[in-house]
Amino acid sequence: MESGSDLFLRACRGERGSRTPVWLMRQAGRYLPDYREVRKQVDFLTLCRTPELAAQVSLQPIERLGVDAAILFSDILVPAPAMGLSLDFNPGPVVDPPVRSADDVDRLAVPEIEAEVPFVYETIRILRRELAGRVPLIGFAAAPFTLAAYLVEGEGSRTFGQWKRMLYAAPEIAHRLLDKTTQTTIRYVTSQVRAGAQAIQLFDTWGGLVSARDYEEFSLPYAKQVLSAVREEGAPTIYFALDAAHAAAAVATCGADVLGADWRTGLDEASRAFGGTFALQGNLDPCVLLSDAATVRRHTLAMLEDAAGLPGHIANLGHGILPETPLDNAIAFVETVKGYRG
Amino acid sequence: MESGSDLFLRACRGERGSRTPVWLMRQAGRYLPDYREVRKQVDFLTLCRTPELAAQVSLQPIERLGVDAAILFSDILVPAPAMGLSLDFNPGPVVDPPVRSADDVDRLAVPEIEAEVPFVYETIRILRRELAGRVPLIGFAAAPFTLAAYLVEGEGSRTFGQWKRMLYAAPEIAHRLLDKTTQTTIRYVTSQVRAGAQAIQLFDTWGGLVSARDYEEFSLPYAKQVLSAVREEGAPTIYFALDAAHAAAAVATCGADVLGADWRTGLDEASRAFGGTFALQGNLDPCVLLSDAATVRRHTLAMLEDAAGLPGHIANLGHGILPETPLDNAIAFVETVKGYRG
Repeated sequence: MESGSDLFLRACRGERGSRTPVWLMRQAGRYLPDYREVRKQVDFLTLCRTPELAAQVSLQPIERLGVDAAILFSDILVPAPAMGLSLDFNPGPVVDPPVRSADDVDRLAVPEIEAEVPFVYETIRILRRELAGRVPLIGFAAAPFTLAAYLVEGEGSRTFGQWKRMLYAAPEIAHRLLDKTTQTTIRYVTSQVRAGAQAIQLFDTWGGLVSARDYEEFSLPYAKQVLSAVREEGAPTIYFALDAAHAAAAVATCGADVLGADWRTGLDEASRAFGGTFALQGNLDPCVLLSDAATVRRHTLAMLEDAAGLPGHIANLGHGILPETPLDNAIAFVETVKGYRG
Repeated sequence: MESGSDLFLRACRGERGSRTPVWLMRQAGRYLPDYREVRKQVDFLTLCRTPELAAQVSLQPIERLGVDAAILFSDILVPAPAMGLSLDFNPGPVVDPPVRSADDVDRLAVPEIEAEVPFVYETIRILRRELAGRVPLIGFAAAPFTLAAYLVEGEGSRTFGQWKRMLYAAPEIAHRLLDKTTQTTIRYVTSQVRAGAQAIQLFDTWGGLVSARDYEEFSLPYAKQVLSAVREEGAPTIYFALDAAHAAAAVATCGADVLGADWRTGLDEASRAFGGTFALQGNLDPCVLLSDAATVRRHTLAMLEDAAGLPGHIANLGHGILPETPLDNAIAFVETVKGYRG
């Protein structure tokens, strides 16, 4: 039987293995009692910045759930301080000062990222050593659009009104900012690959907040640059734009190996919307994991059946696992996927 | 030249008048200085429940902005207390106790709504008298799915995890609840029409939080019942499911006269997704109104050009106007629509 490593990386190449590989977005997180133990000792950012601890929590879901891939424990805003902004969590991210003007954009650095966030690369090196080939290691970053959205807004938001005000009223400033988040992100993730990350996921969490036209102008071209740079480093890429069904045709041109799908669209239908040629990752509604093991199994099997005709499938949730998820339900999800032979 | 009344009601019937009619979702609200003055004296719920004041704020945008329709000042959760739950705003809605079990559902009343919320109907009667035919009056309610989502969750939520847990783990209880929210809503809105509302908008704000399949099971059939009951009363209907591009084909079967479109999809593309036969209402991103008058004009004109081929168009935002919107930008939006001859 193939190891998790083979399963995941083969699925990234659009190949079908003996079974569907599985991992969970935000799998190293508060739903895990072992994670909560570590967090009693350190705050979130200190955890991100302490390689031994970040590696330890990255490994927890491998041991507890038996998932087929590890993902670097970090946060999509970790590059913000390297660009010259302060970052805190309260509990959501707070970036200060928010980037609102052309001058603010000009002041941002495109940093020598390996020197600025060495803990990220050290965590990756520790993880590769500890994993010893059991499962592959995924690195990640925010898509340039989503990183820029946070830098302008200064915090999470339902509407991202400040960011959209810039897109609508001063698109040329937005583009200059996006150039900087793109150059920073390219350095950030290609260095992750060189440190040992075996695949890169780009999270475009807010790419779906704008129209398909604006997505094509402000997000897609920048995401493409990052994905292409990773590909040149030889690592497969996963691109996940949340809530972007209205822009599916544009998303399909991004150049990633695997496209993420959220729970709003069945995997068969999502695959058709993307043109039918991509391996997909997803897409159980994280809220299903708030129910009970029997419900989790039923919905997970339905998801796997939806994926029957796909060129490749990496089972996952359709968004990050919720902190209030009962551990047993996360286990039921993973075990249902691992027991399935389609 | 036609009055606003003719323009709006003709557009509801899919007819093109001399120009595009315009109103704004949540047009009686905190962005208006006159509204903030009234709110200094009374809290939000007291305002909803005091016909003279509710009518007064409903009229403010007619006078300040010159919109082509008035909408009843109220809240989609106003029927909750009539069903036996307490309702407060803090500042978002809080319903207590939340509906979580079959017993909770059984305890809910399908109320004699005119006796329970007489202030709604009195507000409508005052408004029709005060409007004196200048512009028509729109009544509204939550779609049964969206009302049920709040009753189960107990408050607003990003994920509506409690509501989804019911949908996934106990769909039969969800359906019993949806039967009750549907019967209540039918009584609520048909009584609005009998009191004088000349059109009804059904807000399915959370209908897009679930997959197209779940939308078809849990939202669409109930919305259809309400829309059909309103039609039997002789009033046109507008159905607005937010963020539901993934379910557009299903939405198009709801039986409304007009479909709402959010800002994520261009009106031309939204029209195609709905089958090309509907008058549409929408869809400027409310965040455009956070910018400046020139930007508002440019984006509003682009929206109107997108609507050129539609069977009918009611200009509006793609979601409610934001409280922090500068009044001048709301005026620029309305004036751009009213000055446009396509």
